[in-house]
Amino acid sequence: MTETIVALATAQGISAIAVIRLSGKDCIQLVQKIFKGKNLTEQPSHTVHFGTLMDGNKNIDEVLVSIFKEPNSFTKENSVEISCHGSPFIVKEIIKVLLKQGARLAEPGEFTKRAFLHGRFDLAQAEAVADLIHAETDNARQAALNQMRGGFSKEINHLREELIHFASLIELELDFGEEDVEFAGRDDLKKLILKIQAYLSSLIQSFDQGNVIKNGVPTVIAGKPNAGKSTLLNTLLNEEKAIVSEIAGTTRDVIEDEMIVGGINFRFIDTAGLRETQDVIEAIGVERTRDRMKKASLIIYLFDLTNTSLAEIQKEEETLTSLGIPYIKVGNKIDKADTTLLEQLKALDFIFISASQKTHIQELKDKILSYFQVQTVKVGDVMVTNLRHYQNLLQTHEALDRVLEGMGTGVTGDFLAMDIRQSLHFLGEITGAISTDDLLENIFSKFCIGK
Amino acid sequence: MTETIVALATAQGISAIAVIRLSGKDCIQLVQKIFKGKNLTEQPSHTVHFGTLMDGNKNIDEVLVSIFKEPNSFTKENSVEISCHGSPFIVKEIIKVLLKQGARLAEPGEFTKRAFLHGRFDLAQAEAVADLIHAETDNARQAALNQMRGGFSKEINHLREELIHFASLIELELDFGEEDVEFAGRDDLKKLILKIQAYLSSLIQSFDQGNVIKNGVPTVIAGKPNAGKSTLLNTLLNEEKAIVSEIAGTTRDVIEDEMIVGGINFRFIDTAGLRETQDVIEAIGVERTRDRMKKASLIIYLFDLTNTSLAEIQKEEETLTSLGIPYIKVGNKIDKADTTLLEQLKALDFIFISASQKTHIQELKDKILSYFQVQTVKVGDVMVTNLRHYQNLLQTHEALDRVLEGMGTGVTGDFLAMDIRQSLHFLGEITGAISTDDLLENIFSKFCIGK
Repeated sequence: MTETIVALATAQGISAIAVIRLSGKDCIQLVQKIFKGKNLTEQPSHTVHFGTLMDGNKNIDEVLVSIFKEPNSFTKENSVEISCHGSPFIVKEIIKVLLKQGARLAEPGEFTKRAFLHGRFDLAQAEAVADLIHAETDNARQAALNQMRGGFSKEINHLREELIHFASLIELELDFGEEDVEFAGRDDLKKLILKIQAYLSSLIQSFDQGNVIKNGVPTVIAGKPNAGKSTLLNTLLNEEKAIVSEIAGTTRDVIEDEMIVGGINFRFIDTAGLRETQDVIEAIGVERTRDRMKKASLIIYLFDLTNTSLAEIQKEEETLTSLGIPYIKVGNKIDKADTTLLEQLKALDFIFISASQKTHIQELKDKILSYFQVQTVKVGDVMVTNLRHYQNLLQTHEALDRVLEGMGTGVTGDFLAMDIRQSLHFLGEITGAISTDDLLENIFSKFCIGK
Repeated sequence: MTETIVALATAQGISAIAVIRLSGKDCIQLVQKIFKGKNLTEQPSHTVHFGTLMDGNKNIDEVLVSIFKEPNSFTKENSVEISCHGSPFIVKEIIKVLLKQGARLAEPGEFTKRAFLHGRFDLAQAEAVADLIHAETDNARQAALNQMRGGFSKEINHLREELIHFASLIELELDFGEEDVEFAGRDDLKKLILKIQAYLSSLIQSFDQGNVIKNGVPTVIAGKPNAGKSTLLNTLLNEEKAIVSEIAGTTRDVIEDEMIVGGINFRFIDTAGLRETQDVIEAIGVERTRDRMKKASLIIYLFDLTNTSLAEIQKEEETLTSLGIPYIKVGNKIDKADTTLLEQLKALDFIFISASQKTHIQELKDKILSYFQVQTVKVGDVMVTNLRHYQNLLQTHEALDRVLEGMGTGVTGDFLAMDIRQSLHFLGEITGAISTDDLLENIFSKFCIGK
C-alpha cells in the first residue's frame, strides 16, 4: 500500500470545483513535484495551500491543495486533496500529469479499502460509507450513519465474544477429552447457544425493516388492460410519468418511479396489462409484468369495476394468491361501477378508488404503508440493512443449529468445536475480523471510483 | 454582501465526496451552529477540521470543514467549504439546514461576482474563470488561464491609459477653448489615435483565432443524398456515429461530433442530403441543413463522382459560393469515379477521396486545418476569446473613427471629447472599470451555481 493512488472524488461534469484525491506514503512529495507555490512537504496536516499545477513549463490550473498527514486522514496514510476548477478537461489533464509523476489510478473503493486495511474501521463500517452515499431517504441515511459509526459492529463483536466464550468452554473439554470430563455443563451450554441464537434472530428479523429502509419497496401495479394502472401511477406520483390513453395496451414498457411515504422509498412499477395478446411487443410487456410481480414486495392489483364480474375477480384472485406475495385488491372506477357488483365485493377486503377522480387515494396509501411500518431510525438503532450481513447472520444461526443438534445426539466435542468455529467464521466475515482477498475484492469493487 | 450565500460547488450526482461552499462575513459562525467538533470560529485560515453536522439532535453527516478568512479567500470574504459524503440526498439535507440557520442560496456566479466586487480581479478575469471551466482543449484552457491571470486585462488597461492620455490632451485644449489654443498638435493626436487603433485592430483580429480556440469550428458536411456524408463523418471520427446505409435519405437528423485536430475542436455536422423531397421529415432535415450551412465556419461539400456531371457540379458550386462561407470541394468515391470527369475536375481545386476506403483522408484533414491555423497558446499570449470583449473592442475602434473624422472636418474639442469618452466607456466595460448592474447581471447569470 505504499503506492500513490489518485482519482476524481467528486461527480463527473462541469461545475465550479472538482476534487482530485491522492493517498499513499509519498503522495505529498509527488504533488509537490508539479506544484508551484509553498513547499507542501513542510506544511502541517489539515492545511490548505494555493498554487499552480504545472506540466513542465505549462500551467495547468490554479488550485487549492489540502494536506492530510498519516494517521490523521481518511485512509490513515498521507493524503492530498486537490481542489481545481470543475472542468472535466482540466481534471483529466491533472490526473494525467500525476500519473506521469508515478501515481496510479485508484480502483473502485480503494481509498476505503486502505482505510479498512489500516484499521480505521471494520468491514461493516466501510460498507456503510457506500450506503451513506447512496442513501435516498432520511431513514436510510441515519441507518448508514449509525452503521458507519460502529453501532452494528459493536453488536456483532459482542455476539462474537459470547461465541468465543462458548467455544473456549468446549475446547477446554476437548483438552481433557480422554478423561471424559464435562467442564461445560451441557445444559448451560445449550442455554448459552439459545441466548446467542435469540440475539441473532432479532438481528436477522431487523433485516426486513432494514432492507426496506435501505432499498425501498418494489411495488407492482398490475391488472387487466385498461384497468387504470397508469392513471393510478400518475395519481400516486402527481405527475404525468406514464402515457395515459383510452386505448387498451398503451403501456408496453415497465415504468418505474419513486415516492417517499412515511420515510420509505416506494418504487412503483406500472406494468403492461395482463391479457392474451397477438402483439409481439405487448406480449413481451405481459411477460415482464409477470416477472416483476414475482419479484415485487407488494402488488397493487387493479380491477376495472365497470368491466368485470364477481366470477372473473375470483379467478384473478386465485392466480394472485398463488404468487405468495402480499397484494392489495383495488376496485377502480368506483364512480362508474355497477352497484350490484359493489355490493358483492363489500365483504372481500377491497379498496374502492377512482384513480382519475383521485378519490380514496389516501386510503390506498395508508393501506400500502400498513404493510411496511417503519419506525423513524434514531441514533443508536441497530439494524441489518446489508444482504451480505443478513446471509452471514443466517449462516451463523444455522451453524449453531448444528451445534445444538450435535449436543442432542451426543457427538464428541471436536465435532461441536468445528461447527462453533464455522459460526465464528461467518460472524467474523461481517466485520472483516476474518477476511479473504476475494471477499474484500467483492465488497470494494462495488464502490465508486474515488471513494 | 454581508449575507451568507451557500451552494453545491461540485457536480451533481452520486460520488465519493461533494463540496458545499459558503461565503459571507458570518459564514463561519453560521456553520459552527450546526457543527459538532472543534470551535471553528477559533481556527486559523486555511485549516481543515473533522466533525459532524447536526440538524438539532439529528446527525446529518460526518464532514471535513475548510476555513478561509477574509481577505484570503476566493471571494475575499470569510468562506467555508464543507466536504461531505457525495450523496445528493445528504447535500440537500445539509443545504436545507444551512438555509434554516440564515444562509441563502447563491445565485449563479455569485461567488465570482463577490470576488469581482471585492476587487479580487476585474471583469475579464472573472469571465475567464467560466471559460476555464468550459475549456475542452489544451489551447482553450491555456487561453482562459492567461486571461484569468490578467494578461488580457493588462493590455486593455494599457490601451485605456493611452486613451486617457489622449483625452487629457483634448480636454486641456477644451479648457483653453476660448483662447483658440491647440495644446495637442492635431497631427500628433492623429498619430496617437492611429497607433491605438492599430493596437485595437490586432486584438480584434486575434478574435478569429481566439474564438476558434474557445468555441471550436462548426464544420458542416453537406452534399446531395448518398454522396457519402455519413461515411465521411464516420471515417473522420473513426467510429460509427451516423447510421450508414445504401438507401439515399438515411440521415434526417443533424448529427454532431467533435474531434480535436491541431489543438482545435472541430464540431463536424453531418446533414441530410440536399434535394427536393416529398417526405415531410426529410424536408425538415434539408431545411436544417441549409440553416446549418449558413451558420457554419467551414463547409465540406461532397460530390458523388459516380453520379454527377461537370455541369451539375458547376451549378452546385454557384449555390455554394453565394453563401459566402469558406468551403472545401471534395470528390468522393474516387475508386469508382469516371476518368473523364476526373480529368475535367483536375484544375478545379478538388480533393479526391474515398470515404469508405479511407483514402486521402489525411489530405482532407490538412486542408481543413489550413483554414484555421492556430498556434499553440503559450503563457503570456494575449488574444480575444470573448464575444462581448470583441464587440466592445469594435465599438471602441468605431468611436475612435468618429474622433478621426471629427478632426478631419474640424469639429470643436467638446465633440471630440464626447467620442473619446465613449471609446473609454466601451474599453472600460471590458474589465469592469465601468460597469452597470445590468452588465454584471448579464455576465454572472451565465455562470454555474456554486461558482
